[in-house]
Amino acid sequence: MNSAPKGLPMSVVEVRRDFHRYPEVGFCEFRTASRAAGMLADLGWEVQTGAAVMDRASRLGVPPDDQLEAAWSRAAGTGGDPRFLPAMKGGMTAVRATLTGARPGPSVALRADMDALPLQESNAEAHSPAQEGFASEWDGVMHACGHDGHLAIALGLAAELAENRDFAGSVTLLLQPAEEGGRGGAAMAAAPGLTDGIDRFYALHLGMGLPTGVVCPHISGLMANSKLRATFAGLSAHAAMSPEQGRHALLGAASAALALHTLPHFPGHETRVNVGALNSGTSSNIVPDRAEMLLETRADEGRVNEDLEARARTVLAGAAAAYGLSVNVELVGAVTTAANDREAEDRVASAALAEQLELVPSTNRVASDDATAFMRRVTGNGGSSCYFAFGSGDYGPHHSPTFDIDETAIPGAIRLLTRMIRSENAH
Amino acid sequence: MNSAPKGLPMSVVEVRRDFHRYPEVGFCEFRTASRAAGMLADLGWEVQTGAAVMDRASRLGVPPDDQLEAAWSRAAGTGGDPRFLPAMKGGMTAVRATLTGARPGPSVALRADMDALPLQESNAEAHSPAQEGFASEWDGVMHACGHDGHLAIALGLAAELAENRDFAGSVTLLLQPAEEGGRGGAAMAAAPGLTDGIDRFYALHLGMGLPTGVVCPHISGLMANSKLRATFAGLSAHAAMSPEQGRHALLGAASAALALHTLPHFPGHETRVNVGALNSGTSSNIVPDRAEMLLETRADEGRVNEDLEARARTVLAGAAAAYGLSVNVELVGAVTTAANDREAEDRVASAALAEQLELVPSTNRVASDDATAFMRRVTGNGGSSCYFAFGSGDYGPHHSPTFDIDETAIPGAIRLLTRMIRSENAH
Amino acid sequence: MNSAPKGLPMSVVEVRRDFHRYPEVGFCEFRTASRAAGMLADLGWEVQTGAAVMDRASRLGVPPDDQLEAAWSRAAGTGGDPRFLPAMKGGMTAVRATLTGARPGPSVALRADMDALPLQESNAEAHSPAQEGFASEWDGVMHACGHDGHLAIALGLAAELAENRDFAGSVTLLLQPAEEGGRGGAAMAAAPGLTDGIDRFYALHLGMGLPTGVVCPHISGLMANSKLRATFAGLSAHAAMSPEQGRHALLGAASAALALHTLPHFPGHETRVNVGALNSGTSSNIVPDRAEMLLETRADEGRVNEDLEARARTVLAGAAAAYGLSVNVELVGAVTTAANDREAEDRVASAALAEQLELVPSTNRVASDDATAFMRRVTGNGGSSCYFAFGSGDYGPHHSPTFDIDETAIPGAIRLLTRMIRSENAH
Amino acid sequence: MNSAPKGLPMSVVEVRRDFHRYPEVGFCEFRTASRAAGMLADLGWEVQTGAAVMDRASRLGVPPDDQLEAAWSRAAGTGGDPRFLPAMKGGMTAVRATLTGARPGPSVALRADMDALPLQESNAEAHSPAQEGFASEWDGVMHACGHDGHLAIALGLAAELAENRDFAGSVTLLLQPAEEGGRGGAAMAAAPGLTDGIDRFYALHLGMGLPTGVVCPHISGLMANSKLRATFAGLSAHAAMSPEQGRHALLGAASAALALHTLPHFPGHETRVNVGALNSGTSSNIVPDRAEMLLETRADEGRVNEDLEARARTVLAGAAAAYGLSVNVELVGAVTTAANDREAEDRVASAALAEQLELVPSTNRVASDDATAFMRRVTGNGGSSCYFAFGSGDYGPHHSPTFDIDETAIPGAIRLLTRMIRSENAH
Repeated sequence: MNSAPKGLPMSVVEVRRDFHRYPEVGFCEFRTASRAAGMLADLGWEVQTGAAVMDRASRLGVPPDDQLEAAWSRAAGTGGDPRFLPAMKGGMTAVRATLTGARPGPSVALRADMDALPLQESNAEAHSPAQEGFASEWDGVMHACGHDGHLAIALGLAAELAENRDFAGSVTLLLQPAEEGGRGGAAMAAAPGLTDGIDRFYALHLGMGLPTGVVCPHISGLMANSKLRATFAGLSAHAAMSPEQGRHALLGAASAALALHTLPHFPGHETRVNVGALNSGTSSNIVPDRAEMLLETRADEGRVNEDLEARARTVLAGAAAAYGLSVNVELVGAVTTAANDREAEDRVASAALAEQLELVPSTNRVASDDATAFMRRVTGNGGSSCYFAFGSGDYGPHHSPTFDIDETAIPGAIRLLTRMIRSENAH
Repeated sequence: MNSAPKGLPMSVVEVRRDFHRYPEVGFCEFRTASRAAGMLADLGWEVQTGAAVMDRASRLGVPPDDQLEAAWSRAAGTGGDPRFLPAMKGGMTAVRATLTGARPGPSVALRADMDALPLQESNAEAHSPAQEGFASEWDGVMHACGHDGHLAIALGLAAELAENRDFAGSVTLLLQPAEEGGRGGAAMAAAPGLTDGIDRFYALHLGMGLPTGVVCPHISGLMANSKLRATFAGLSAHAAMSPEQGRHALLGAASAALALHTLPHFPGHETRVNVGALNSGTSSNIVPDRAEMLLETRADEGRVNEDLEARARTVLAGAAAAYGLSVNVELVGAVTTAANDREAEDRVASAALAEQLELVPSTNRVASDDATAFMRRVTGNGGSSCYFAFGSGDYGPHHSPTFDIDETAIPGAIRLLTRMIRSENAH
Repeated sequence: MNSAPKGLPMSVVEVRRDFHRYPEVGFCEFRTASRAAGMLADLGWEVQTGAAVMDRASRLGVPPDDQLEAAWSRAAGTGGDPRFLPAMKGGMTAVRATLTGARPGPSVALRADMDALPLQESNAEAHSPAQEGFASEWDGVMHACGHDGHLAIALGLAAELAENRDFAGSVTLLLQPAEEGGRGGAAMAAAPGLTDGIDRFYALHLGMGLPTGVVCPHISGLMANSKLRATFAGLSAHAAMSPEQGRHALLGAASAALALHTLPHFPGHETRVNVGALNSGTSSNIVPDRAEMLLETRADEGRVNEDLEARARTVLAGAAAAYGLSVNVELVGAVTTAANDREAEDRVASAALAEQLELVPSTNRVASDDATAFMRRVTGNGGSSCYFAFGSGDYGPHHSPTFDIDETAIPGAIRLLTRMIRSENAH
Repeated sequence: MNSAPKGLPMSVVEVRRDFHRYPEVGFCEFRTASRAAGMLADLGWEVQTGAAVMDRASRLGVPPDDQLEAAWSRAAGTGGDPRFLPAMKGGMTAVRATLTGARPGPSVALRADMDALPLQESNAEAHSPAQEGFASEWDGVMHACGHDGHLAIALGLAAELAENRDFAGSVTLLLQPAEEGGRGGAAMAAAPGLTDGIDRFYALHLGMGLPTGVVCPHISGLMANSKLRATFAGLSAHAAMSPEQGRHALLGAASAALALHTLPHFPGHETRVNVGALNSGTSSNIVPDRAEMLLETRADEGRVNEDLEARARTVLAGAAAAYGLSVNVELVGAVTTAANDREAEDRVASAALAEQLELVPSTNRVASDDATAFMRRVTGNGGSSCYFAFGSGDYGPHHSPTFDIDETAIPGAIRLLTRMIRSENAH
């Protein structure tokens, strides 16, 4: 696992560590995406990036321009691939790569996500990236959900298939930006023609608390999710000399936060509302004129989430009005529900058994992944989809500062995917 | 003080005790007002009641019809004067009575208020009405602000002047319903012609913590006051089986209550906001569909109170909207500010000195009295007004279950007012 | 169905109508319980009431003494049975009645609940109690959950078995007070020896939206439920003159209400929190010194409900402290979860099939019934329990003003229960 | 005004512009204080800094060590005086300088404050610092309250007196750190002996909306002020997968913010409560485990502010408890009230008249300045104090991004102070 596959400049573990060391948040994956694109091109895959594979206007929660520019420049200075960086400017960091097999057959697509999280990585001794010297170089950004591993798996698979094209049909890698927050999947899926003709769609996710190498093909509970950024605007004033001239954005936002969390339970459904961030004001003696809130709604059924999101917007508008404020509400992330197709689950299970991997029959993941945007389209077009888990050891919850993956899972996952592809029959 | 003045059926103390024993809340003063009118008529005063002396539509916070009818019937059965009861039906309990002196001279008006409070009277031994057997006959209603004494003073004065008309000009008694809550004064003042031609207007108030017989002619701080009843309407639902179908009126009202109390301070002003009552729901397992709130705003300047009231309405509308409710806001009481005229204060002070009463130069009453509705009109017409205090001992705060008055203050106040009137010069 | 069974003074429909007409709320079922006890005694059943069959101290949410006394006196004046009324004083309205069959056999117990709801009955034409002249005589109290029917069934069964004792073992009727609010069941179950030796326990519930005569033996989702009454105590003050001397109970309660509704979701569980009532204050110009709140927590697992109840108590204490208040929290109702035993369900199903009644395999009732207090003890002692539904037509939701039952369900249910008892084998 | 006084390296206007260009926030005034100390030493004043003139432990709201160190290093690299920088390490930036006159006489002390505000300076054309090229070099820091001018006046006066010591007694300049937030004055005043023997204390403040050169010696309304930083700590959790394991710091802080703003009015007093900042969380899908709040209480009487501060602490503790949080409350600023002495006001007024400056009799400044810490001690020791305003044109409110001063006020103020000092008589 530590020697470089033919055509790759480094081993798959080194690939993972390289990405881990230079993590980039959603739509800022300039270094990550361009390097991945470069390696794929060097392997002989047909690569497209930028506007060809992502609908610019469908992106949600895109960072401000100056942040995009700074990230791009930093990527250019830390090994971003100059062949692909230009097309990615402004956050167009999606990549699609296709390889055609020796025989005709189905079109198989695999999703890998690329973004890291705004999180400070642990420097504890026991945290292997710290110990082995590949912890994040960037303050406050970290791969804490295994996406670095997903990329290493994708590139390892790409090398394996490129070296031996003895498979039926074609394989397409969909390298997605901004999975976190549900901001990039739907934008890629909305690119004209991107999901046309896909017969099978797979999204493998490492982790989920499963032991290394354990496979769970039946995941239920993927929740619909709406992420909102609410910006309250009031009037600033000196808190002692003229408080009555102010309109107190902090108080209106505080009232909204409480009201949002009082939204009711929906019997028979898993639902969630969370106000995850509230930032307002800088000084004790000023009536703050601005408050920014990040919140989300979730439900195990799209219709229920739509209801919740509508109620959340009603709360925001009403609370703002009560305090004499205006409020701007922006959708910065959106994930639909989707269900696996039994046929695709069976293919994963069969390959896992053939690889002598342990199977866990089912797990409920009360969380969201915008792989569902691809799944809905593929299933809608008559294809089949499976979102499945590949265990990589239990390093605590995803999104925590000590999250890690057992790197031996990487070659294991590559073998599983290889088998899934090579076992497809010709038409 | 215990013998009946000529023309009155009982002594002034007995008058006070009679009214004390049968207290009636605002616009329900059927027994009180009709008996007072009857006594005044019997003394030879010219008496008007009902629609002639109060504008029906200007009344605020009128009780519901069934309550008015029950109160009227009860008054008819407990000594209400049948000559005057008919015109008072439906809460038209205002009385005006006029007596003309022997010589031409100014028109002097005196306000006395008649209503009691929705309060359970103390039955403590030390509370003289309990001890002497004239405590309230009616559960939950009590004269706890001295209005019973005001009426006794007015009737004693009426008897004194009727017996000896040696005074210049005319005297008008304005017996006002519903002072509590600021609901009746403006309605009387709005009756066509009622305040025309008044040269002096006085409103004497007993109590205010002053020792018996002490007079304070300079009262500042009378606040403008708006009283609102807000009724929130949502949707009821079973709290366990279908909470998502409810719209929780209690929560919306709770949020509004907090928001109302966060309304800002106005530098340089005394302002107040109070949510004094919130009633919603009956059972723990129901989403309540209704909440009723009583609240008030006050300020030492009318413009500021208008601003506060408008903000309060904004809060109510916004909080209701946030919780998916509708809200109905009704103005159930309104008091303006008003200031005494120096000339009228001087007349009170001169008479007090002549009566060898102690003077307190000034007191600040951070409260409201809708005598201000008369004051504004009289002063606006070129007359002069004085709202003043006449001490009747300190029996604890007004509006408390043990509030009482030293009854020796009644003849003292009658002498003071008599002197004020008899010292007016002919034109 | 309209002729009186032998030994009963009236038909079972007339029994139901008699109870319907004189509804009594929890622990005030003096007329209902004493008359039922009297009829059972007259039928030859062995009857016990009062402290013998209910643990006084285990009762929750007992009304205040004056209310209990008034209800007792009213019962005495409207047909309450003088033989049994004395032992029931103070709310000890539980009844147990036992009849022994001709042959030895198992001990079978049936629960019937007796209390009505604090609800104003509809007087709509289409509402049969109004049309037929047996609507509630008492303002604001109504049998809106079918308990009147439960009693008629119990008494009809009692007459049937008394007339023909050809059955094995014994039958015990447990007539329970205060099922609404979960206040009486556990208190009866706590009476020494009350549940000892019971081999089968059944609680039949009419209604649940099922067509008349349809039986559902498998009911899941009975939730644990804690009902709390929180009384906040602050300090009263004049809202304009001395608000700073007050401690505003209404605001503290409002803050608590919001905080309670923000308690989190428990993934994988149905949970509920509801503040169903908040009453505070009477007048807009007073800082209210008292607020009373009724609230409940529920969960589909006892442990989760305990957690929620503990969190609710934490919220109440903290919110009170924040506003300078004290708070007294009283548990006024408590229901545990319980699950049916398969064996007992099968007995119900078999009898239903033999009676040619339609079976519905399963229904989820996201609600609570303190029959679970008996069920837990019986199952714990090695017996088996079944809480089951007997359809009586769909008259809208239980606890609504037009709730009703199809009276033809009464004899049907009697036949079902009779068959269940007569089909028990001798030991 | 543009030539350097003898002994100063630049003109007083250049002094002001030098300080304006390199603004430093409270306790970070390393460059400012060391350069001022250096110039005073070069003029022959006796200079003390650091622990000799400020009690380390009495400082409030001291920035964290790394911020202090960065500020110190920056000061060392931008012209901080190496003679004085070492003693100032760690935020000990107070300076006292004394000069003795030719004749014996009273001890006169003048306060000048040195700190800037965390505010982004305007780069508008019309804003003279931007136009003239001396706007702040540091992002987000700005002299927006005239302290740069205060220092220029102090140094100009120092040069004038050093050149001609013909005055009675001694003059002490008290250069105070961290006036903003009320964090430095009391700490200087607490240095042993610092205020001993002061006969007159003056604190001149530029601005306050007065035209250039207008003097107002009678300022009332200086409020007591307590500034608090509350840090709530809960438990983080994934908002979808395990919200029940979290303790939501954001919600507890929001509830506290609302409750703080409901604290009551105190009749007859100006009081304020303001939550000026609330920062919690970073991501919509996390239960935030931390919230930081900045708040303040104010009152026109120290006792009332103490009451308010105690209530605020009660609210914070209670709200935290309600949400299962802990809270740490730190006093980060404290200002007492103080009143001018008539004698000292008269000296200011006499000198102003002698300088033919216009006098405004009185102004009310509903704000706070911790010059009051010195005033209380001086007055307590038998000396007299005057906080007075010297107009410098109206450039909008203090603490706004375009605040400025008319620089011609600087020499005018120097002349006024010089006259005040030279007109003191010998003992």
